[in-house]
Amino acid sequence: MTLIFSNDDIDRLLTMPEYIDVLEDAYRELEEGRGVVRARTDSLAPTINSDAVYGLKSADGIAPKFRTSAVRINSDIITCPEINGQPRRVKVPAAPDNRWVGLVLLFSTDNGEPLAIFPDGVMQRMRVGATSGLGIKFMARENAETVGMIGSGWQAGAQLLAVTSVRNVKSVKVFSPSQENCVGFCGEWSGKVEATLIPVATAEEAMSEVDIALCSSSSLDYIYYKEWLTPGLHLTSIKLPEIHPDAALAADRLVIHNLEDKQPILSAAGTPSLENVRGTHGEVKTSIQFDKLPTLFDLISGKVVGRENDAEITCFLNNTGTGYQFAACGAVAVAKAKELGIGNEVPTNWFTEDVHP
Amino acid sequence: MTLIFSNDDIDRLLTMPEYIDVLEDAYRELEEGRGVVRARTDSLAPTINSDAVYGLKSADGIAPKFRTSAVRINSDIITCPEINGQPRRVKVPAAPDNRWVGLVLLFSTDNGEPLAIFPDGVMQRMRVGATSGLGIKFMARENAETVGMIGSGWQAGAQLLAVTSVRNVKSVKVFSPSQENCVGFCGEWSGKVEATLIPVATAEEAMSEVDIALCSSSSLDYIYYKEWLTPGLHLTSIKLPEIHPDAALAADRLVIHNLEDKQPILSAAGTPSLENVRGTHGEVKTSIQFDKLPTLFDLISGKVVGRENDAEITCFLNNTGTGYQFAACGAVAVAKAKELGIGNEVPTNWFTEDVHP
Repeated sequence: MTLIFSNDDIDRLLTMPEYIDVLEDAYRELEEGRGVVRARTDSLAPTINSDAVYGLKSADGIAPKFRTSAVRINSDIITCPEINGQPRRVKVPAAPDNRWVGLVLLFSTDNGEPLAIFPDGVMQRMRVGATSGLGIKFMARENAETVGMIGSGWQAGAQLLAVTSVRNVKSVKVFSPSQENCVGFCGEWSGKVEATLIPVATAEEAMSEVDIALCSSSSLDYIYYKEWLTPGLHLTSIKLPEIHPDAALAADRLVIHNLEDKQPILSAAGTPSLENVRGTHGEVKTSIQFDKLPTLFDLISGKVVGRENDAEITCFLNNTGTGYQFAACGAVAVAKAKELGIGNEVPTNWFTEDVHP
Repeated sequence: MTLIFSNDDIDRLLTMPEYIDVLEDAYRELEEGRGVVRARTDSLAPTINSDAVYGLKSADGIAPKFRTSAVRINSDIITCPEINGQPRRVKVPAAPDNRWVGLVLLFSTDNGEPLAIFPDGVMQRMRVGATSGLGIKFMARENAETVGMIGSGWQAGAQLLAVTSVRNVKSVKVFSPSQENCVGFCGEWSGKVEATLIPVATAEEAMSEVDIALCSSSSLDYIYYKEWLTPGLHLTSIKLPEIHPDAALAADRLVIHNLEDKQPILSAAGTPSLENVRGTHGEVKTSIQFDKLPTLFDLISGKVVGRENDAEITCFLNNTGTGYQFAACGAVAVAKAKELGIGNEVPTNWFTEDVHP
């Protein structure tokens, strides 16, 4: 039988500490060459709404240690409005019932069969959180206990789970351009983590006098600046544009998630101009030579040291994820689902065939 | 609702003449830049059987005219035995109930929703057939009525349907290294096409004194040679290695299906040697400069002429297909399925989500 999971199922199946453990293990495999990452591709075409663009993203990977492969697919209607004075890339939930379309298909490398199909949303944000969490685990001060955050959206929750999973966090100051969202976020998460959550009025206030600074916004512009750095800080972002290059370059140690195998964006004739849809593929004007930076793989394997003393400023740049991450995390989710009886079973024969493909 | 089709459903939904029409239309779009082809990628890794390799293939594309996109995925267990003295690449049906794993996911470019999920086998072979059929339509003599075929397997049936769809074929001589398969094939197809099918004892006999020569084998070695060419012949193959380069280059007009955007094969450490798994990505030692050849797109758009007189020898080389073809053919299949009430409906919400991906 092939398992169909909902996002709620995925949520119940894996906790943040488990994602962090799985990914640490998976990255060690990848560092040793024992895995395959097929870089994400982005294809764009016109859609019926001329102010929007249709986007098809796919990425895949094989995780032999976990005996799985995964393909992640996103079928998006993309717009680029200005929100709170800043350009944002907004995926419109245009599918029936106002829903988004992101799917993961998980296969067995033992016999090729489809093991599971599930929406990508929960695992996506948890693995982004876990990736930042690994940066914090290997780079932040052991005794870090105060955190500042910019952003109070979907990704921010996973960042909060990640930082509180790897450090004994006492307090978290949170800023969002929408004060309402910010207060709501602090209320929602107060019972779920041990740290005290404090909504604050400005980004600078959130980021001042903290041990760890988390950028977890949907902004396509800089939101963290060099002037805010303090000795001993660990600074991290979920997207490259969030941290001003001067701030990243001023850190004593700067590590990037992975060296991306950038694929050109493929675009059909007649696709609306993408001038405003920055960030679609992480294109950033910067003075940072990303391809010269050490990676999370180097950190985990011990090739580079994350921090040598409590005075150093460290910075971790999270960037594009991979299908490989879904293969590894998906394998653990399926194993737990079988143990716990979670997920809807459908006949595997729906997704296999008796004719040669 | 999202439609789940079986291969039998796909078989009922579209006929060969429909595939040929859809693809002719689709290629014209593509020639004009109004579509996206994301080239196939091949990833390889070890599997539990050390004599086999796990392969994950994916390809995708967007067909704005048809308002669809498609992702095609193959999750294969691959071996490379020698059969009848010739090396073959064999995908093992290792999934439960001895099945293969090839899937197409079709999405709407209007709202992103998943329209259908179906196995790839039937559409795959029909579009290979239709592609050869377009080559025949634009290059073979109008009065061609005798055909020779090498191969009597799964692909051969679609080649037969294609040639009989575009020319008034009277007789087809068929050769296969397995005489039993050859006779079985002729018996099976005799009632389905108007032409007379004649099993013959050698490849040369099949290919002699015919107007159209079809290579539709699973061989990774040459099976058609220059010595067999005769004036007025149209020669076609489903894979590049089938026709000896000297034969292809001796043709007056030589056209290739498409100029492939070749992606490197990604391979995990510890993957068994691929020396014997030739053909995985159509790698062929040849003197033909494929990237200088005119394509099927050029033929269909009229940029090149397929044939100028009945004495010319023409040759069409079929090569790797694209996700774009599945987007176009899938759109027509879904439209017909809705008309005819074919396919199992499952809730679209299974494959969409209410959280931001």
